[in-house]
Amino acid sequence: MAEEKVSAGCLIALITDFGDQDWYVGTMKGVIKNIAPEAEIIDICHQIPAQSVVAGAFVLRNAYEFFPAGTVFCIVVDPGVGTRREAVVASEGKYFFVAPNNGVLALVAKESKNWQVHRITRRKFLIPSVSATFQGRDVFAPVAAHLARGKKIAAFGPPLKRFITLKGLQPRRVGPNTLVGKVLYIDTFGNLITNLRREELLRLGRKAPATIVVSGKTLRGIRKTFGSVRRGQALAYWGSSGWLEIGVNHGNAAEVLQAQVGTDVEVRIG
Amino acid sequence: MAEEKVSAGCLIALITDFGDQDWYVGTMKGVIKNIAPEAEIIDICHQIPAQSVVAGAFVLRNAYEFFPAGTVFCIVVDPGVGTRREAVVASEGKYFFVAPNNGVLALVAKESKNWQVHRITRRKFLIPSVSATFQGRDVFAPVAAHLARGKKIAAFGPPLKRFITLKGLQPRRVGPNTLVGKVLYIDTFGNLITNLRREELLRLGRKAPATIVVSGKTLRGIRKTFGSVRRGQALAYWGSSGWLEIGVNHGNAAEVLQAQVGTDVEVRIG
Amino acid sequence: MAEEKVSAGCLIALITDFGDQDWYVGTMKGVIKNIAPEAEIIDICHQIPAQSVVAGAFVLRNAYEFFPAGTVFCIVVDPGVGTRREAVVASEGKYFFVAPNNGVLALVAKESKNWQVHRITRRKFLIPSVSATFQGRDVFAPVAAHLARGKKIAAFGPPLKRFITLKGLQPRRVGPNTLVGKVLYIDTFGNLITNLRREELLRLGRKAPATIVVSGKTLRGIRKTFGSVRRGQALAYWGSSGWLEIGVNHGNAAEVLQAQVGTDVEVRIG
Repeated sequence: MAEEKVSAGCLIALITDFGDQDWYVGTMKGVIKNIAPEAEIIDICHQIPAQSVVAGAFVLRNAYEFFPAGTVFCIVVDPGVGTRREAVVASEGKYFFVAPNNGVLALVAKESKNWQVHRITRRKFLIPSVSATFQGRDVFAPVAAHLARGKKIAAFGPPLKRFITLKGLQPRRVGPNTLVGKVLYIDTFGNLITNLRREELLRLGRKAPATIVVSGKTLRGIRKTFGSVRRGQALAYWGSSGWLEIGVNHGNAAEVLQAQVGTDVEVRIG
Repeated sequence: MAEEKVSAGCLIALITDFGDQDWYVGTMKGVIKNIAPEAEIIDICHQIPAQSVVAGAFVLRNAYEFFPAGTVFCIVVDPGVGTRREAVVASEGKYFFVAPNNGVLALVAKESKNWQVHRITRRKFLIPSVSATFQGRDVFAPVAAHLARGKKIAAFGPPLKRFITLKGLQPRRVGPNTLVGKVLYIDTFGNLITNLRREELLRLGRKAPATIVVSGKTLRGIRKTFGSVRRGQALAYWGSSGWLEIGVNHGNAAEVLQAQVGTDVEVRIG
Repeated sequence: MAEEKVSAGCLIALITDFGDQDWYVGTMKGVIKNIAPEAEIIDICHQIPAQSVVAGAFVLRNAYEFFPAGTVFCIVVDPGVGTRREAVVASEGKYFFVAPNNGVLALVAKESKNWQVHRITRRKFLIPSVSATFQGRDVFAPVAAHLARGKKIAAFGPPLKRFITLKGLQPRRVGPNTLVGKVLYIDTFGNLITNLRREELLRLGRKAPATIVVSGKTLRGIRKTFGSVRRGQALAYWGSSGWLEIGVNHGNAAEVLQAQVGTDVEVRIG
């Protein structure tokens, strides 16, 4: 069984779009410590752009594999709160996840061989609420805490019937040597992170990418470090999470290239 | 005695208006861990608008009851630092509080049956400081840490003579069926959180609120979820902390309704 | 030996310029907990202005001495990432530091009597990475975790040959009674924090500072509290970290005085 590895005292890592202005995240932490005093809480990020499921999925995917086995990830990016979307609990054998069933777990699931998902339906694990609007506190935090105390994912409800994935995240092949991907995420420094992975480019052939075109600008080759181009110049490089990224040495690529999430990035090998 | 329930190793939860740019919050954490290595520190919020006692009181009131018994809340929103305002330590039997005596504890005190407050005057529990400007580090953090190690609230000084409350937070009754409240807080998402509680509206009679008027706009009835109105439409609902709130489906109510903290909200039942 | 005092289970305190938008800080925490499950992680600040080594050095210097003995400080403000700048591990006997060798440790080193620095060269303590761009995750976090588990600083590599310091941080003496310093840091509240310390002014003679000139404005004497001048008036005071600071009562000194990091501050005693 996947969840055998979780043991009391383990880590709960949080990803939300709640920001840091209000009591929302703090209250989730209170709920967790109330149920699982021995759990340790780690903030990954609370600044996911409001209701951006893709950004939440991306942050989770780039962080989770660096955590210890047994970590419970609690992700609350939930534009459908109060509608009939399901709340789910999942595992791929080593890690555990609590989230809405809206695609926010899709990038992790895609990489997993042993993905199991259950709905959260057993009300005895939840906080009885006066409201339908704060399921981070009333549903996701308490389920994460019960997982950390050793509950199995099957304890929270029946297996999920239809797991929601994300559409349009695959690059398109538009010629024998050419893939068109897009910007999935722009980080604090303005670096453009694309949906192009090294493995996928290798499938086009053994040659390295020769030209990368973004916002009408052509970049030549993949660089190792920012310092390999002049200040203010754009470059393409393999980012620290394995995606093709575009940056500007001592500058902000999103501004310099006028790019945004969704902007096309064309790569030609050869 | 109220404070018998605190035991070493308990939680210290922080609320400040220090922001996250500087070393202020980090230094408070260092002081706490130095005095009470076994204490666990939880950030609730450090983005209280500068010197906004009402916002600090509100965040505390909406978060505290979800924490485990024995939690020590350390609240530093302190426009009077360096003046003669008192520093206090308080308990209502289950939780403990360290804060300036300026109203930031008033909403919690109002709900408590067994409220006890002492002044902080015993200098041996404080950090000898070069300055009168950083009492978060020199007064509030060390007292929170000593509480977490089991010190009683009476150990820090004599009972407080005059506990400061907040004025003007009560809704006004302006007719047999009508209450006028106001916006107390606007959250990250732009939702307007009012000072109107369900219990108080029930005192007007058994009928549910029929109309809510804010910024000249009339809303009909209380909704259960944002999805019950069209995109861009405003709605009133019972928020997750028990206050009447006004939101906009997929929008920012503060912007759409041009409302701010202090804006009147009129509720008519019947 | 300096590092004898570190024991497993100790604190790791983080200072970075990674901001709070992305997965960068969260991933460092995952790496730390994976290597040192018993380590406790404290966020000091992740909002150091991008690549501002002086601000990072300043935040560290003002925070570190309030932490318990044995704390490991992990500082990632690293404009030279990917170049040949060294990564180092250091100790002054009571505390431990992991950082790039770029001056970010210079203010702490200057105050230490027993400063020891080693390079980080042993690859077995690092995370094998796909990229040269995220050494917070791949170098600094794992080394901090191994330190927390009891590794000595000499285990990570040979002694450092040339420790980088910061230039231009010393005030200049421009007359028998006059020092010219500058603004080193501006905090969230707009207070100007200078490089002038009380000890240094005492060296000019026993008299207290009589006039402080900043941005063409002359302030008279050192005040004890903000309340000692009228609202909107500027004042000079000894800040909570021992530096001469300039603030405005109920206002933002950086805006009122149009000052920035680097602005001259002249002090005359007498």
